Amino acid sequence: MRAALGEGFPGLRGAGQEKGWEAEGRAGALDRWLLARLAKALAGVPIRLALWDGTERLAAPEPPVARVRFRNRRALFSVLRDPEFAFGEAYASGNLAVEGDLVAALVGIDRVVDAPRRGGRRRPRPRNHGLGAARENVHHHYNLGNDFYRLWLDEEMLYTCAYFPSPDDSLEVAQRAKMDHVCRKLGLKPGDRVVEAGCGWGALALHMARAYGATVTAFNISREQIQHARRRAEEDGLSHRVEFREDDYRAIRGRFDAFVSVGMVEHVGLENYRTLGEVIDRSLEPERGRGLLHFIGRNRPAPLNAWIERRIFPGAYPPSLTEVVDGVLSPFDFSVLDVENLRLHYARTLEHWRRRLEAAAETVAAHFGVPFLRAWRLYLAGSEAAFRSGSMQLFQIAFARGVTNEIPWTRAHLYTEPIP
Amino acid sequence: MRAALGEGFPGLRGAGQEKGWEAEGRAGALDRWLLARLAKALAGVPIRLALWDGTERLAAPEPPVARVRFRNRRALFSVLRDPEFAFGEAYASGNLAVEGDLVAALVGIDRVVDAPRRGGRRRPRPRNHGLGAARENVHHHYNLGNDFYRLWLDEEMLYTCAYFPSPDDSLEVAQRAKMDHVCRKLGLKPGDRVVEAGCGWGALALHMARAYGATVTAFNISREQIQHARRRAEEDGLSHRVEFREDDYRAIRGRFDAFVSVGMVEHVGLENYRTLGEVIDRSLEPERGRGLLHFIGRNRPAPLNAWIERRIFPGAYPPSLTEVVDGVLSPFDFSVLDVENLRLHYARTLEHWRRRLEAAAETVAAHFGVPFLRAWRLYLAGSEAAFRSGSMQLFQIAFARGVTNEIPWTRAHLYTEPIP
Repeated sequence: MRAALGEGFPGLRGAGQEKGWEAEGRAGALDRWLLARLAKALAGVPIRLALWDGTERLAAPEPPVARVRFRNRRALFSVLRDPEFAFGEAYASGNLAVEGDLVAALVGIDRVVDAPRRGGRRRPRPRNHGLGAARENVHHHYNLGNDFYRLWLDEEMLYTCAYFPSPDDSLEVAQRAKMDHVCRKLGLKPGDRVVEAGCGWGALALHMARAYGATVTAFNISREQIQHARRRAEEDGLSHRVEFREDDYRAIRGRFDAFVSVGMVEHVGLENYRTLGEVIDRSLEPERGRGLLHFIGRNRPAPLNAWIERRIFPGAYPPSLTEVVDGVLSPFDFSVLDVENLRLHYARTLEHWRRRLEAAAETVAAHFGVPFLRAWRLYLAGSEAAFRSGSMQLFQIAFARGVTNEIPWTRAHLYTEPIP
Repeated sequence: MRAALGEGFPGLRGAGQEKGWEAEGRAGALDRWLLARLAKALAGVPIRLALWDGTERLAAPEPPVARVRFRNRRALFSVLRDPEFAFGEAYASGNLAVEGDLVAALVGIDRVVDAPRRGGRRRPRPRNHGLGAARENVHHHYNLGNDFYRLWLDEEMLYTCAYFPSPDDSLEVAQRAKMDHVCRKLGLKPGDRVVEAGCGWGALALHMARAYGATVTAFNISREQIQHARRRAEEDGLSHRVEFREDDYRAIRGRFDAFVSVGMVEHVGLENYRTLGEVIDRSLEPERGRGLLHFIGRNRPAPLNAWIERRIFPGAYPPSLTEVVDGVLSPFDFSVLDVENLRLHYARTLEHWRRRLEAAAETVAAHFGVPFLRAWRLYLAGSEAAFRSGSMQLFQIAFARGVTNEIPWTRAHLYTEPIP
C-alpha cells in the first residue's frame, strides 16, 4: 500500500520531468556542505538526502525509508533557512520530492526533530477568531467544494477521526461506529434535544435523529456544507427533527439536553475557550446537562506546523487536554467523566483518506493543479505521521454538569449493548 | 439503611446524655438571632436547626432530611465563626448532633454552600511534604493500627475507591473488580515488572503477581501496612515476586514496564508533582513505559475541607485533573490515554465502609473513645456526601510514553474479555 504513495504516481512524475532535474547543473562545494549540515540536523532519521545532480547523503546508518531529493539550490536553501514552512512549500511546488515511504519519512522527522522539543513550552502564535476571521478561515478549507471532499471521504462525508472497532474495518464501518460511539457516550435517548456545534456535512446530526430519536439543532458557518446537510435532511425525511443553521456556535440559543462538537474546538481559538464554555453552560439544562468534545490535541501546548497553518488550515490550533478542560469546562463546574485518546484511529483514518486521494489523483490534479494535489498529499501524510509519532492526539471528552448524578454507572454499555 | 445512621446508635446517645442536653438552660434572644442567621446562611438546605432548649428553625421549606442540634452556645458560636472547621469539632465532641440522614444533610450543605463557590479559584494552603513531614502525615492516618481498619474495610484491606460492575455488588466483589480494572487498564502480562507507589496493605501488588504474573516492587512509608503486606506475601508464597519496601516514592530506583499508584497522589503535595513525574519518567522503560494514577480529585482547584485536613488527613490535597496532567505527566511527554471518573463508585464504597463502622461502633468507641468514633463517622459520611454532591471526583488516568504505539487499540477488552 505504501509503495503506491510518495512519488509513485504518473501526474507527479510528469510534473517533475517538465521542470527538468538537471536545470541547476552540478552541485558545488557549498551545496554539498549544506547537504551535510542538513544530514547532521536530521541525524537519526532513516532517510537519504539527494541533490539535483545525484549527490547523496544518509542521515542515519539504518536502511532509509525514503529519498528526499532537492531539485534545485533554492529548495535546499529555503529548507535550511525555515524548515517547518519551506519543506511544505518546496514539496507542493515539486522543487522537493520524496521517493519511497512518505509517511515513514515524516514519522522519522517528527520523532527526531519534534519529540525532543516537546519538553519546551512553545506558545501558539496569536490568531484572529472573530466572527469575520472565523468565517474566512473556515471558508479557506471547507469551501473547496463538496465535490473535492466527496472524492476521498466516506459516503457520509465525515471529515473527522473515525473509530475502528477492529483496525481492519472499512472506513464506512468506522465512521458509522464513531457516530455510535459518540451517541452512546452522550447517552442519547428518544426525545433528547441535542445541539451540535460545527456539524460538517450533517452526518452525525442526521444519525442522532435517525438512530437515536433525538431532535437536533446543528450549527456550521460553511455554506456549502450546510446546503448539502439540508438536502440530505429532506431526502431522508428528517427535516422536522434536524435543523441546520448557517451560523457560528456563538449564536446558539435555547436549552438542550446534550451538547456535542466533533472537530470544531481546533478552530475556535484559545482566546474563545471561555466563550465556548459560556455557550455550553447557557445551552444545557441547569440540573443535568451533558456533552462531548472531540478534537485534535497535544500532550502539551505547541503551535501547529507553520506550513499547515498557512496553506491548509488557517487559524487552526490543536490544544492540550488541559487547555480545553481548564479553558472550557472547569470554569462552569463541568465534570470530566471520560477521556479517550484515539490517535491511532486518526492515523488509520488518514491512511484511508490518502489512499482514496491517490486513487483520484488525476482528477484532483486536472481540477486543482499538481501543486494542490501535492499539498494535500503532504497534509494527509504529515497528519498521519503526527498521529503515529505521538506528536498529535485525538481526545474525546465526555462531561456533565458537576451537580448531576444522572451519569453512566460504568462504560460497559459502550462495548456490550447492541447498537441501535 | 440510612435510618440506621446519624445519631441512631447507642454509644453516642449515651455520650450525649452524659453531658446533659439542658445544661445551658433556655436560649436567649441572641441565641435565637444567631440561629436565624445560620438558617439564612443555609437557606435551601433541607435541614431543621435546633437549640439546646428545643427552639427550632427550618433552613428550607421542603421536608427536612435531618435535625442539626446545638447542645450549647459555644457550639453555636463556633460554627457561626468558622463553619468549615468548627462543625467537625462540635460534631466529634458531641456538642452538635445530627438526627436523621447525616449524608443527605451533608449533601445539602455541599450543594448550597460549596457548589456556588466552586466558580472561584481558591488556592490550597501551603503544606510540608518533605520526607519527614510526609512520614508524619501518613503515620497520623494510617498507623492507627491494622485492627482498626480491619473492622470496616473489606477482607483484602483496600482503603481506596472500589469499582462496582453493578451497584449492588458486595464490597469484596467491587474491590477485586477494581484491582482487575486497574491491571487491565495497565495491560499487564506475565513477566511485566511493575512498580507501585503507595501500596497500602499490599492487596493490589499481590493481585498483580498472583493473577497477572507480574513482578512487583511496592513502596509505602507506613510501617504497619508494610509489615502486614510482607506477612501476606509470605503466607501466599509470593515473596519471590513481590518486594515490599518501607520507603518513599522518591526512593524508587530501576526500570519497570509499568508504574501504578492508587490513592497516593492526594498525599504527594502539589509542589512535588514534578518530582513524581521525574520518578515515573526515570522508572519506566524509555520506549514503551505505561502507567496509571488513581486519585481523589476536583473539577477545579480548591483546598480540602479544613477539619478533615487537620483532624483526619494532614497534608492531603485532592487535585484537579489538570493539576495532575500538567504537573506530573505533560512535562515528560506522557500521553493521557484514558481518564475515567468513578465518583459515584467512591460514594458507594464509603457507604459500605460507614455501614461496617456502625456495626463495629461499640468496639471502636471502647478502644478509641466516642469522639474518635464520631469523627470517623463524620469523615466517612462527609466524604460520601462530597462524592454524591459532585464536589469531589475520583479519577483514574491511564497514560503511556508519548512515543510508544504499544497502546490498547480500544477499551473493549476491559468489558468483554474474561478476567484472569
